[in-house]
Amino acid sequence: MSNFADRLIEAITAKGTSCIVGLDPRLDQMPRFAWDGLMQLACEEAVHGAIRRFHEVVIETIAPMVPAVKLQLAFYEQYGLAGMLAFRDTIEIAKRNGLLVIADAKRNDISSTAQAYANAFLGVTPSPVGPIRAFNADCITVSPFLGRDSLLPFVQTCQEHGNGLFVLVKTSNPGSVDLQDQLILKTQEPVYVSLAILVDELGSLALGKYGYSSIGAVVGATFPEEADALRKLMPRSFFLVPGYGAQGGTAANAARCFNPDGLGALISASRSATYAFAAPDISRRDFSALVQDKTRAMIDDVAKATREHFKS
Amino acid sequence: MSNFADRLIEAITAKGTSCIVGLDPRLDQMPRFAWDGLMQLACEEAVHGAIRRFHEVVIETIAPMVPAVKLQLAFYEQYGLAGMLAFRDTIEIAKRNGLLVIADAKRNDISSTAQAYANAFLGVTPSPVGPIRAFNADCITVSPFLGRDSLLPFVQTCQEHGNGLFVLVKTSNPGSVDLQDQLILKTQEPVYVSLAILVDELGSLALGKYGYSSIGAVVGATFPEEADALRKLMPRSFFLVPGYGAQGGTAANAARCFNPDGLGALISASRSATYAFAAPDISRRDFSALVQDKTRAMIDDVAKATREHFKS
Repeated sequence: MSNFADRLIEAITAKGTSCIVGLDPRLDQMPRFAWDGLMQLACEEAVHGAIRRFHEVVIETIAPMVPAVKLQLAFYEQYGLAGMLAFRDTIEIAKRNGLLVIADAKRNDISSTAQAYANAFLGVTPSPVGPIRAFNADCITVSPFLGRDSLLPFVQTCQEHGNGLFVLVKTSNPGSVDLQDQLILKTQEPVYVSLAILVDELGSLALGKYGYSSIGAVVGATFPEEADALRKLMPRSFFLVPGYGAQGGTAANAARCFNPDGLGALISASRSATYAFAAPDISRRDFSALVQDKTRAMIDDVAKATREHFKS
Repeated sequence: MSNFADRLIEAITAKGTSCIVGLDPRLDQMPRFAWDGLMQLACEEAVHGAIRRFHEVVIETIAPMVPAVKLQLAFYEQYGLAGMLAFRDTIEIAKRNGLLVIADAKRNDISSTAQAYANAFLGVTPSPVGPIRAFNADCITVSPFLGRDSLLPFVQTCQEHGNGLFVLVKTSNPGSVDLQDQLILKTQEPVYVSLAILVDELGSLALGKYGYSSIGAVVGATFPEEADALRKLMPRSFFLVPGYGAQGGTAANAARCFNPDGLGALISASRSATYAFAAPDISRRDFSALVQDKTRAMIDDVAKATREHFKS
């Protein structure tokens, strides 16, 4: 089983970009074509069908353009069983279209419970009816709040299955300062620095042939100076960089998350790529064209900003 | 809609205990009767059926004895769609049997994503086919890693729907020291102290008629001195105390999580109550009797330790 960082780098090279698209089902904001012919079905079937169709169009549009998609679990879970069925389907559609799948789940727990989450998203769960592959993602986001021992089951499962991890280090929201920016007495450094050191250490357990690790970090595009510091602390880790577009992260900020080799970051846009239409009665064809335009604009924007960042 | 803390206190008073039972589906450890007649079904049906039947027996056994059950999401998610269907069914069975339901999900994310998780477990999600109640829990565990703003959507949803929250403050695992015990430069206090102050502040937004808040804290039974300190910092918050039994938390330690009024803590046992049998071919009746015995023993153990704690 090949290393996740290797697979990611090969996908980035093939597509020529480190931009990815976030898939956040928001039924009350979807265009009407997603619901065509579904409204008369039972509620769960309609919900599942609309989410599936919407993402089918997005994925088929962007699959030739980007290396991966990021599925936000919360937006699937909010629709219950129908949402989780759509989550599984969306993973399947994305993989069939050659995309890597990041489950943005921000999960974690302790010992055997952390292992259960790792099995759920990155591995298999043993059972008397045979091993169960619950949700077949390539990669998951996890929280470091419970400490090093809570991350180890994920690291081990990544090693076994060639999958990857992004550990929350510095998130894009204003409240990220509350805990993540607190200076620690012993080190006189912010919490996020000690987390970066931990990620770098764990990363050495999952290095691929290109020198990058399958253990990455979530670093928001909204805190550029922190990104500079974190880039130095985790030279071999990929950064998953949310917050581009709708959350106010600029391409110039996102560019600071790359290494000079042009690798080491994934820049993710969700709403700005997939919910940018004005009229809910936009046709499927026009919607696809718009998603393509917005994704292309983002790719160009990030490429330009990255070139400028490394020129200066 | 009545306040969660009020509903919890009334349930505790009615059952005469603050002990609760954790429901962690572990298919490879379940007794054989859970699978009777299911093995010839399709894999997902068999998995769903076995988890459902196992928890039906546990819930019907303990419903007269305890105020609530704690469902560990990771153990359901590891079985994929079948697991999530069993999760929804288990909530329904627990509520039908008069138990409060704690979803031990340790979720969180930022802004509208945190709201989606809050809707998923504690509220409703708007949609063009009407509001969707995804998973009908009374209460959820959440992580404070992303800061105060990430907790507010949960607090607000609790206020709107009369539901509750347990914020991770000091977890029961050894690695909880890595981040949670770090001394903060500004306050010279550990991280868990600043989290406790935040929980107490948020708690004032959801006080019930008995003076307790619907915003509680997760405090492991494995760190008794920390529990003493935290009890003082969050006098109006319920503590969800995992780690009794299998994780090595003793009743004497758990007792320190109560207020002198005998309220303010929920002591949870999972494996020691529901997976204590030796032979996998135990009958349904013997299994139920064993779960009853183990739950009774725990209730008595915690009651005795609590009496002794407040006598001394």
